Amino acid sequence: MPFITNNQNAMFYECAFSCDNAIFFSNKKQAFFITDSRYTLEAKENIKNQNIEVVTSSDLIADLIKLAKGVANITFDPSQISLEFYNKISQILDLNPESNFHQKRRMIKSNDEIKMIKKSQELNKKAFKKFAKFLSNNNLDDKNELFLNFKAKEFLSKNGKYDLSFDPIVALNHNAAKPHALPSKDKIKKGDILLFDAGIKYKRYCSDMTRTALYNGEIQFNKQQKMPKKIQKIYDIVLKAQELAIKKARSGMKAKDIDFIARDYIDKSGYGKFFTHSTGHGIGLDIHELPIISHRSETIIEDGMIFSIEPGIYLDNEIGIRIEDLVLMKNGKAEIL
Amino acid sequence: MPFITNNQNAMFYECAFSCDNAIFFSNKKQAFFITDSRYTLEAKENIKNQNIEVVTSSDLIADLIKLAKGVANITFDPSQISLEFYNKISQILDLNPESNFHQKRRMIKSNDEIKMIKKSQELNKKAFKKFAKFLSNNNLDDKNELFLNFKAKEFLSKNGKYDLSFDPIVALNHNAAKPHALPSKDKIKKGDILLFDAGIKYKRYCSDMTRTALYNGEIQFNKQQKMPKKIQKIYDIVLKAQELAIKKARSGMKAKDIDFIARDYIDKSGYGKFFTHSTGHGIGLDIHELPIISHRSETIIEDGMIFSIEPGIYLDNEIGIRIEDLVLMKNGKAEIL
Repeated sequence: MPFITNNQNAMFYECAFSCDNAIFFSNKKQAFFITDSRYTLEAKENIKNQNIEVVTSSDLIADLIKLAKGVANITFDPSQISLEFYNKISQILDLNPESNFHQKRRMIKSNDEIKMIKKSQELNKKAFKKFAKFLSNNNLDDKNELFLNFKAKEFLSKNGKYDLSFDPIVALNHNAAKPHALPSKDKIKKGDILLFDAGIKYKRYCSDMTRTALYNGEIQFNKQQKMPKKIQKIYDIVLKAQELAIKKARSGMKAKDIDFIARDYIDKSGYGKFFTHSTGHGIGLDIHELPIISHRSETIIEDGMIFSIEPGIYLDNEIGIRIEDLVLMKNGKAEIL
Repeated sequence: MPFITNNQNAMFYECAFSCDNAIFFSNKKQAFFITDSRYTLEAKENIKNQNIEVVTSSDLIADLIKLAKGVANITFDPSQISLEFYNKISQILDLNPESNFHQKRRMIKSNDEIKMIKKSQELNKKAFKKFAKFLSNNNLDDKNELFLNFKAKEFLSKNGKYDLSFDPIVALNHNAAKPHALPSKDKIKKGDILLFDAGIKYKRYCSDMTRTALYNGEIQFNKQQKMPKKIQKIYDIVLKAQELAIKKARSGMKAKDIDFIARDYIDKSGYGKFFTHSTGHGIGLDIHELPIISHRSETIIEDGMIFSIEPGIYLDNEIGIRIEDLVLMKNGKAEIL
């Protein structure tokens, strides 16, 4: 399938290199990495595939047109290509718009990719442990969410060694009821419930995990938690929903069937309307990839897919609970990474 | 001028908040921040301007159309809006494509913005000093560019406190001849020439600076350098070109006139063909903004603009020298930040 992309993760997937001014054009057997002279040397050093030619260009689109003219049915992603870019090529090239076509190519992970994501999540888990240790061993009087967020980034990035998959969420009590909470000046105190959602990048591959835990002078980001009774009830519903979805997920199911497992359990426990998002999302070079594990997704789940399972219950102005792991579909079942 | 944007820095400029799923629509006196329920609470907390309404939406484009239908001549940036987005609105709204229209709005900085960029560059300079101290006070045997890059990020980000404007460049000798060098495994040794190009973000405002310096067991990122004779000659040409451009830049000139000052001096010194990029770029919320200080730019320079002055000479497989400062146009002249 001939295609054009200028998305950096898509390019990196195809040729192990990307930069902020390049177009990748694949014409079945041969492909072209078109970039300007600033990046040519590095592109040539990094692109080992003999079938990919690095083209030095002072007008990327003009050179793309030269290479792609006459090729039939070139796929591109209309959600990723700008109108300006499209206007320059639409009259000349034979184009086939298909949203998310490249994420579809990446939906089933190779063994190498699985290794990277596993390693990424391992490093992420280590950071969770170090952060818990820091929270448990230090006096946190007068420390607010902004400070905790800052410290979390130190552990996650190993002081800058790793990029983050996204800005981590460190949210206390009712702040965790906003699924994408920004850090506030609220101070941590004993008895608080802390939601921590974070991920790093290892060789550009993302990880992602969420734990909700009681801070009582100490904290542990285990799934087993002892919380005040009323909160424990909600926590246990989320945990059970998450565990059920992981336990019962099978290759061959539709993504929406997995969503249903978690959603149905929360529904029947009486909290259905407080589970306001999808059960999960694919992950890889992008933090959000296909498959989406939502109630509308007809995607057939297959071995080699990696996605999150992360149900949650959010009571406005009160509490937010979410528990998230990544799973790899393997031998028909979901294995926690 | 009515306009639409979904660029995060443009939105932040307009209303002091942004997120990854929002559309900003301004209709002269009133404006709308359209986003989904995940972000509504934070948007309302952060957007203080009474004339900007936060709209909670489960279909952003449908709500945009409701608000914008009938409004004449709505400007948008065709290089920033995807084809998919455009296709959904182009038949219904009265649209006026204009590339970079929002960067043009931001070209002259407010006093508050000038303060932020100054502060950003101050923090950046402090990181340069700390990095120099680290390089001078530690045994760097067997340390390669990758390690130096990693350490630089520690100082720049203050262990994660600040985001970086871009991935810093730490390039030794011939590696610095690639204007956008990726860190290599080349090891630092006495007598090496190190190019260091870096910037941080303070309250989202970018800074940017480059120094090229001799490592001789110690290093200082001053502009005055003592280098081996052959390199010193090239260094002094770059330095003089940079100083001349800063000294002679005036409000009322065209941007290309400032480029010419640096380029002409390097040309006449015999290295014209080795100065392969523009003299500078505007900076603000984006690391690269208007005005572009290039030989083609007809932009009239005005008080309140902030841009880099960064000529360079690059001899392939040999050496790269670049010296960069940010300047603010004030009382008709360029003041170094």
